[in-house]
Amino acid sequence: MEVFSGIRQEHKAYIDRVINLFLPEGNEPQKKIYEAMSYSVLAGGKRLRPMLMLSAYNMFEGGDKEIVEPFMTAIELIHTYSLVHDDLPAMDNDEYRRGRKTTHAVYGEALGILAGDALLNYAFETACRAFQKGKHLERIARAVSILGKKSGIHGMLGGQVVDMEGFSERLTGATKEELKRRLDYMYQLKTGALLEASLTIGAVLAGATDEEIDKMEQLGGIIGLAFQIQDDILDVTSTTEVLGKPVLSDEKNNKLTYVSLLGIDKSREEVEALTKEGLLILKNLNWDSAFLEELLVSLVNREF
Amino acid sequence: MEVFSGIRQEHKAYIDRVINLFLPEGNEPQKKIYEAMSYSVLAGGKRLRPMLMLSAYNMFEGGDKEIVEPFMTAIELIHTYSLVHDDLPAMDNDEYRRGRKTTHAVYGEALGILAGDALLNYAFETACRAFQKGKHLERIARAVSILGKKSGIHGMLGGQVVDMEGFSERLTGATKEELKRRLDYMYQLKTGALLEASLTIGAVLAGATDEEIDKMEQLGGIIGLAFQIQDDILDVTSTTEVLGKPVLSDEKNNKLTYVSLLGIDKSREEVEALTKEGLLILKNLNWDSAFLEELLVSLVNREF
Repeated sequence: MEVFSGIRQEHKAYIDRVINLFLPEGNEPQKKIYEAMSYSVLAGGKRLRPMLMLSAYNMFEGGDKEIVEPFMTAIELIHTYSLVHDDLPAMDNDEYRRGRKTTHAVYGEALGILAGDALLNYAFETACRAFQKGKHLERIARAVSILGKKSGIHGMLGGQVVDMEGFSERLTGATKEELKRRLDYMYQLKTGALLEASLTIGAVLAGATDEEIDKMEQLGGIIGLAFQIQDDILDVTSTTEVLGKPVLSDEKNNKLTYVSLLGIDKSREEVEALTKEGLLILKNLNWDSAFLEELLVSLVNREF
Repeated sequence: MEVFSGIRQEHKAYIDRVINLFLPEGNEPQKKIYEAMSYSVLAGGKRLRPMLMLSAYNMFEGGDKEIVEPFMTAIELIHTYSLVHDDLPAMDNDEYRRGRKTTHAVYGEALGILAGDALLNYAFETACRAFQKGKHLERIARAVSILGKKSGIHGMLGGQVVDMEGFSERLTGATKEELKRRLDYMYQLKTGALLEASLTIGAVLAGATDEEIDKMEQLGGIIGLAFQIQDDILDVTSTTEVLGKPVLSDEKNNKLTYVSLLGIDKSREEVEALTKEGLLILKNLNWDSAFLEELLVSLVNREF
């Protein structure tokens, strides 16, 4: 466990260095947008998506990291843009995230919108820089395609729409099973899609087989779902101090969650079952998956 | 001229068909976002960018259109997203565009933001579908890279930032020359960059040489600048009826324009000089550029 957390810290530091290298810099007259982008990206965060991508790339023995680095950055940029736009007044209207002012709160709403746009666009620009390395063109083409698909309306963005549209109007008459299916679908897209992208892109770039890539996609979906259920659990079991954000917010917002739907015990069982399923996928792949296994366990069992 | 306008109409109809084919469709629960995207894209417009791309592709004898069609769609999606976000309350706050309600006015502000995001993301997704044709991988990789660069902070989006940041605070003490340089820079990015992308992507996909691609980029910049100066001119010389939007708006908004800076005669001279420069580039390329020449002339001499 200590070895794991040491490696994880090393990876995190390496990922931060990589992201920093790719961030745009410049002077007037576009200086403000570079600043707003950096402000958003450097807000901290666990760098979970690049970490998963790197772990998958390493597991499949991708070797030299020059083609995966642009994608590690791209996936974090996309995650960041989604938070920046999510925080906007017309969306969740959050002035703070993890105790730090949100992008629009610092730079104004207009630049908040543009900074999000810029991060999304720059993600694809950055990913395309992998082409310049002059090798593995087909893998990179496939990776850019996955990035696009998993971020968009059939992936993360679709999940945000489902989340925003809410469930309330459709709650009437729906069975528990139907509601659970809908919730699973939303979690799968909103959180799962980018995790699927992270793991599959890592695998694709490392030259994994189609079957292995499919398995990594499955694993991403499983981690995404478990991660979200754990989120629902922590909202009722944790404290604001530990979590770094207000607890009991789902109940307050009358939000449908795993806990409100199935209760806390069943939710915990679900997380456990998903964890087992994920670990089994990794074991059956027959690569050295020790790091990814520990990462998986630490993610779904997290306390904050 | 009549032959030209016949071909142009045919091209326009073909482009509309292509875009329609690529637009996403679907049912609940993401239905709303598909609707908002289609609403934005089908608002009309001249399809100028796909038209330029197609013309360049044809001029360099690109042949079979299956790899250019995804990009023709992508460039129009990016243009559309920029309008959708530009119209938002926090930006220009426009309820109408060309006599039709803007996207956020119909679907609400939150979905307006998400629809713009979705269009931008879907542009890259769509462009990547060219990879599936299994040929010209390198050309497509280069085209996706151009798309990213010309849309982002070093292209169109950068121009929007410069435009939004305004010139007022920096007006004091600036010479006419400095202001003109700044205005040129903004026009070049805000309008020029996507036209450069259109022409160069058409050329790249058709297999043009690096020198030819450079020339097309130059041409895009020239058309963009001429187009914007013509915009400034029409704002003071046209009528609201002909233009389809309020005239004298630049003056009202105290905006720095070519006309306010250099006067109307000098502005017209500038458009004429740019047109000549553009036509010369095309002639010197030694391809059959008749259609692109007529298109160029019609764009910079437009009355609305």
